[in-house]
Amino acid sequence: MKIKTLDRGSKEPPSNINVKSIDENQIAALISITGEYPLTLYVNKVPLVTLMTMGQHPEALSVGYLVNQGLISSIDDISSITVDWETNSSIIVLSNKTNLEEQRLAERTITSGCGQGTMLGNLLDKTDEIELPETTHISKGTLYKILHDIRQRETVYKTSGAVHGCALLEAEKIIYFIEDVGRHNAVDAIAGKMMMENIKGQNKYFYTTGRLTSEMVIKCAQMRIPILISRSGVTHMGWKIAKDINLTMIGRAKGKHFLLFSGESRFLFDEAEYAEN
Amino acid sequence: MKIKTLDRGSKEPPSNINVKSIDENQIAALISITGEYPLTLYVNKVPLVTLMTMGQHPEALSVGYLVNQGLISSIDDISSITVDWETNSSIIVLSNKTNLEEQRLAERTITSGCGQGTMLGNLLDKTDEIELPETTHISKGTLYKILHDIRQRETVYKTSGAVHGCALLEAEKIIYFIEDVGRHNAVDAIAGKMMMENIKGQNKYFYTTGRLTSEMVIKCAQMRIPILISRSGVTHMGWKIAKDINLTMIGRAKGKHFLLFSGESRFLFDEAEYAEN
Repeated sequence: MKIKTLDRGSKEPPSNINVKSIDENQIAALISITGEYPLTLYVNKVPLVTLMTMGQHPEALSVGYLVNQGLISSIDDISSITVDWETNSSIIVLSNKTNLEEQRLAERTITSGCGQGTMLGNLLDKTDEIELPETTHISKGTLYKILHDIRQRETVYKTSGAVHGCALLEAEKIIYFIEDVGRHNAVDAIAGKMMMENIKGQNKYFYTTGRLTSEMVIKCAQMRIPILISRSGVTHMGWKIAKDINLTMIGRAKGKHFLLFSGESRFLFDEAEYAEN
Repeated sequence: MKIKTLDRGSKEPPSNINVKSIDENQIAALISITGEYPLTLYVNKVPLVTLMTMGQHPEALSVGYLVNQGLISSIDDISSITVDWETNSSIIVLSNKTNLEEQRLAERTITSGCGQGTMLGNLLDKTDEIELPETTHISKGTLYKILHDIRQRETVYKTSGAVHGCALLEAEKIIYFIEDVGRHNAVDAIAGKMMMENIKGQNKYFYTTGRLTSEMVIKCAQMRIPILISRSGVTHMGWKIAKDINLTMIGRAKGKHFLLFSGESRFLFDEAEYAEN
């Protein structure tokens, strides 16, 4: 796959912009707010979707979006990606051999993103078939260390807020940490990076600041990641799917508190406390 | 417009469900989690989108989704809505005279929801034309009272979290308060209620717990509401659009703190403090 990114001055749009605001004491101050840019994905010249993104990982986001919508199944399906910030487009050319069914693109009409539609119908059926490895474990000490380390990495969140963060981890090691204005963009960008760099999910953990809704659980399962951690709460359908496929789902994980909702066999309540720096 | 809601035992699916979880001290407890249900909108028998919703206002959500996607412009465009929780569908029949362009439905393919696509292209162009009334004002005292009162209303949020809340207000009076698993569902349901009950936005305020991204600002502008309040932060594109159309945008509003980002002329820094109960 060839990747080309065209400039608009800087390589990528800024993740923070300072704007004027007035606070409750009528004092004016410059406040850092999060960048948000439209990025339209064109697949073989046909516009597919416009994503609103912080714009830090447009190539991985493009790949991950196609993967998580079930439109491609291998990196070989893509011949090239050209991101052009002058026109806010990501131009994806599929390889000739790609068997991208017309039907699939047509089905896109039915569905969309983030509580407001998803490929849920298609994906739920497939989720049933997913088998997650039983041999991956997480201990309480490791979880606490992860929660601590991720707090250090949340640079945009700390500066300007209004973003969600996601991380892919192997034991205590953060492999990717990505922030974006939409929690689904952050997940999709990680899925894209995994495919681009041939990283498998079987022995990994996935962390998100966002809520564990059905869509988030399905995406985690599609990436074959058996352990899912969130700072936020859980919805009933997210919980139900996690139970069905025995995904280890940990919600409300913050500091030294968490709730284990499913997949208990992968969790080790070891007594070894994680020593804070 | 005729509205019919078919049962599945109870009139609507439960907003909270108790499930077992285990906490950090290895103590098992029943935790209340938020209901989340797929609701597929069929327009004249054609499936349009599957929304993941808490399911408390399926009819208003159906109407509001169509309005906010620019697919209908009046309640007269709809002949009937039948919500069937047995099949999780909302069956919308348009009135004969409705001029729902085929083109419009086709354009849906390009876009989707929540950072992950929107009718942004179409809507941004239209947003330019929107004129918001200058005669609607909000004072610091009123804002504090609103923030206080809304906290009392967040029942699902308090019980099980993982929801966003939105409110339509006329001065200090809460006209609607709606919680849903997706922040866009909550906004859309309010837009739907406004259209169903012929409530105009010109003299109203809109409150959301969610971030002020481009999509949220555009929806507020479409409802012709001149004052937008959020507990959360602001993205750059949300800010830019608000500036362009001179929407009064207040972010990080919580307790007695807030940041006024735009439309300062509608805000009164009165000294009258709101007396807490």
